[in-house]
Amino acid sequence: MAIACTGSVNERTTDAGGLTAAALAEMIGAVVVGDGEARLTGCAGLEAAGPQDVTFLANRKYAKMLGKTRAGAVILGEADTRYADGQTLLVAKDPYFAFRETVVALHGFREHPSPGISESAVIDPSATIGLGCSIHPFACIAEGATIGDGCVIYPHCYVGRDAVIGEGSVLFANVTVYDRCVVGRRVTLHSGCVIGQDGFGYATHRGAHHKIPQIGNAVIEDDVEMGAGCVVDRATVGSTRVGEGSKFSDLVAIGHGAQIGRHNLIVAQVGIAGSTQTGNYVAMGGQAGVAGHLKIGDQARIAAKAGVMDDLDEKGEYGGQPALPMSQTKRNILALTRLPQMMVQFRKLQKRVAQLEAQLGQPVEPVQND
Amino acid sequence: MAIACTGSVNERTTDAGGLTAAALAEMIGAVVVGDGEARLTGCAGLEAAGPQDVTFLANRKYAKMLGKTRAGAVILGEADTRYADGQTLLVAKDPYFAFRETVVALHGFREHPSPGISESAVIDPSATIGLGCSIHPFACIAEGATIGDGCVIYPHCYVGRDAVIGEGSVLFANVTVYDRCVVGRRVTLHSGCVIGQDGFGYATHRGAHHKIPQIGNAVIEDDVEMGAGCVVDRATVGSTRVGEGSKFSDLVAIGHGAQIGRHNLIVAQVGIAGSTQTGNYVAMGGQAGVAGHLKIGDQARIAAKAGVMDDLDEKGEYGGQPALPMSQTKRNILALTRLPQMMVQFRKLQKRVAQLEAQLGQPVEPVQND
Amino acid sequence: MAIACTGSVNERTTDAGGLTAAALAEMIGAVVVGDGEARLTGCAGLEAAGPQDVTFLANRKYAKMLGKTRAGAVILGEADTRYADGQTLLVAKDPYFAFRETVVALHGFREHPSPGISESAVIDPSATIGLGCSIHPFACIAEGATIGDGCVIYPHCYVGRDAVIGEGSVLFANVTVYDRCVVGRRVTLHSGCVIGQDGFGYATHRGAHHKIPQIGNAVIEDDVEMGAGCVVDRATVGSTRVGEGSKFSDLVAIGHGAQIGRHNLIVAQVGIAGSTQTGNYVAMGGQAGVAGHLKIGDQARIAAKAGVMDDLDEKGEYGGQPALPMSQTKRNILALTRLPQMMVQFRKLQKRVAQLEAQLGQPVEPVQND
Repeated sequence: MAIACTGSVNERTTDAGGLTAAALAEMIGAVVVGDGEARLTGCAGLEAAGPQDVTFLANRKYAKMLGKTRAGAVILGEADTRYADGQTLLVAKDPYFAFRETVVALHGFREHPSPGISESAVIDPSATIGLGCSIHPFACIAEGATIGDGCVIYPHCYVGRDAVIGEGSVLFANVTVYDRCVVGRRVTLHSGCVIGQDGFGYATHRGAHHKIPQIGNAVIEDDVEMGAGCVVDRATVGSTRVGEGSKFSDLVAIGHGAQIGRHNLIVAQVGIAGSTQTGNYVAMGGQAGVAGHLKIGDQARIAAKAGVMDDLDEKGEYGGQPALPMSQTKRNILALTRLPQMMVQFRKLQKRVAQLEAQLGQPVEPVQND
Repeated sequence: MAIACTGSVNERTTDAGGLTAAALAEMIGAVVVGDGEARLTGCAGLEAAGPQDVTFLANRKYAKMLGKTRAGAVILGEADTRYADGQTLLVAKDPYFAFRETVVALHGFREHPSPGISESAVIDPSATIGLGCSIHPFACIAEGATIGDGCVIYPHCYVGRDAVIGEGSVLFANVTVYDRCVVGRRVTLHSGCVIGQDGFGYATHRGAHHKIPQIGNAVIEDDVEMGAGCVVDRATVGSTRVGEGSKFSDLVAIGHGAQIGRHNLIVAQVGIAGSTQTGNYVAMGGQAGVAGHLKIGDQARIAAKAGVMDDLDEKGEYGGQPALPMSQTKRNILALTRLPQMMVQFRKLQKRVAQLEAQLGQPVEPVQND
Repeated sequence: MAIACTGSVNERTTDAGGLTAAALAEMIGAVVVGDGEARLTGCAGLEAAGPQDVTFLANRKYAKMLGKTRAGAVILGEADTRYADGQTLLVAKDPYFAFRETVVALHGFREHPSPGISESAVIDPSATIGLGCSIHPFACIAEGATIGDGCVIYPHCYVGRDAVIGEGSVLFANVTVYDRCVVGRRVTLHSGCVIGQDGFGYATHRGAHHKIPQIGNAVIEDDVEMGAGCVVDRATVGSTRVGEGSKFSDLVAIGHGAQIGRHNLIVAQVGIAGSTQTGNYVAMGGQAGVAGHLKIGDQARIAAKAGVMDDLDEKGEYGGQPALPMSQTKRNILALTRLPQMMVQFRKLQKRVAQLEAQLGQPVEPVQND
């Protein structure tokens, strides 16, 4: 690999002057242990960090790397300070949030290019474009569509007829929003997302699958973010909905008529089938699947690869296929790993009983092989 | 969420005058129970429906909501009429198909915008464009490609060299059809679909994976519909094929050389590996996976998340990982849920046998812990 | 299906004169058994092949079809020659690689159209475009981006600010490379791939999920190929990396900060979560998932649908959910299929022991139903 990645790969959108450890600690609500005058200009991983970088102990697995980091300061929780080895520490109650605040303070958010309204975009005269929008080349905004103030529409996005994009939303390259769908405010849709394609609705009759016109739409509420390639079906009637503040990773599929609650966290490659409702603050691990027409309670946590076939209670933890309460699934899996050994012992026990039966003059049942 | 979705979200492409319940019943082959003169103008869900809407009992789970619906009429099957509570009913033998016919009668199908051949599309002079096509801005049709009569090609679609799109097909925004691939008539490809990318073919030799040129193509037969983000590999040699009338939901992946039969129903996130053949009327649930080089019989039904490792007989129902006949998988899963309890009992039984052995002067085997 | 696919569907980019079996054998390092003078002009599958085609026994499953093929020559390994029935054979030590060499010799690689730099592309004046590039219509190259010599950028690709594409790489239609990401040399990205979208990083605080700016990037090293719709998150800090020579099938998702080793083979719909590292020559079957923060050893083989929850040793074979050594998973699955039967026997054994206990005057435990 001959391509040069010289220097730090991390973007810096803010002034590179940086902050002292003490000043940063005050901003992020942490306590400094060590050199409060250390000047910190950026964030980096444990291994890559240099003396001007802040790093973060993201996972206790990496605790042994703490001794080797060259970072100027390390953000961690009280309980992890015992792993440190002389570094300047920024001890925080919620270290992950403190790290987030540090990244924001030292690097800021991505600055989008501001081409204004590109002459290479095609915008139907009947569309409404808000103030301060950036509409990139080859974006296409169809008749009657509305783009709110301050939106960024990257190249190759298509916003269909009468669709609405709320103010401050960002559609990265190659996003499609179908006709009459509604995207809220401050929504981020990463490349390849598709909002509002027809749901999977066919009535099978005399040997053919007859399409049911999908006359509803899809609504993505405020402050949602979706990773690359997520797809949300439009409803047969009414609206498929993704609730305010929910975050999706990549390649998530949402079926028609599903109602995703507020502040859900949905990891990559999850599929949620049609008409299912999730509560608020539901979390799902990667590749989990949820069948249609179910209700998932508030704050339910669904493990990676789980296959949910029934309604789930709020606050529960679930896993397995079919998904059961996590404690039960773990017990079942543990039992399964012991099963081959137990089967050997079972055969032995059968023989021992047979021997006893013989000794007592009972009729002996033959040991079966299955 | 401040975005206004006032009024019905459901699209109406037909005359809003509507139909009487009696007239509608005749059109869809149903029997009216109740007010045959009720005027019906649209379709809506059980909760959202008003007095001019027809609704539909899609799932018996929602039967208790029947009593509360304000719908002007409810479509249901004979067996579900007992759940009704005074509403006007449209009783149908095949209520799902009757509902479909109702949506078509009252709302019609999506009307595509008709920009003709956009000046902002790029069409190679050697391409052939049929009569009455709509080619949207930023569509790109490569040399030698053929677009049949009445096709709709949305923005950002790419139809590669010598590819063929049959008459009346619709490619929504951001669809890619690779060179020399063939898409049949009346096919619908939703946004993000990719037809004919190279299959996963590499010969590993002396530490490197050497690409095998994928010289075949992909063929999508008539009346196929694919949801968003479906991808179909081209064949190494010959054709990958998706049979007439088959319907895919979203994010389905088809490997090179696979032969999908006619009228298959393939739900979201299914993966079918290379060279596998499915019969006709095969159905697969979400996130199912089928290994390569297999034969799946006609009308086989494969459950969500199943992992198919062997050929499957026609008409069978299969599930689990690896997939087995569904009755067997259910029995295994039930047994597994009972296993931890049984293991406790097994330990007890071992002890009881040991006690008997002691009583009878037999050598006693120690109880093993595993 | 009325669309004509007359003649061979297989592309021929080389001279159709072909080669004799003897000449081909010499090129591919095989031994001819049969007619060395047979003229061979193309490759085809066992069923479709005609007298001028070379075919290949890709899988022993198809051995019985060998007797029926009309192919002019069949490539196979020494061990499979016993299935042949009079055909001319090309016997090779590594038949798969020999077949690959044959396809290259008789058909060559895809020839990309060479439109030069299309006037319908938008290239920022600050971008650098190498010599001999093909930049198709509607491609968009942002400020500061670098496109190496001889690249092919198909329509609707977006290469973001300061991104780098190494020489000889091909981006098929609708590929997105985010700002500051690096794609190596001779990389192929099929349609719908997204490189460098923001990783799934949120710090939950007081009821909201606060976005952590993803200030790192994604790096795709030399000679990588990705199928359609693959997505690679950018790192929170530092780089997500896909190592040299690795090959992905379709719809693969790579989490932020993951480090994929060199020469990995990753089949369709695999998901690898953030910060996980894979060694070199790792192979993963379709729909496998790997949790975050793990280390997967060199040459580990992970079965389709496996759910990897722990570090894996090098060279091991793993499968199941959670993934265990394959031998153990197979033993567990076999035991599970026998479990329902064993439970019946267990009930019987309990009764037999109770009978013995009664006979010996022991207190008898009742048989429990669970």
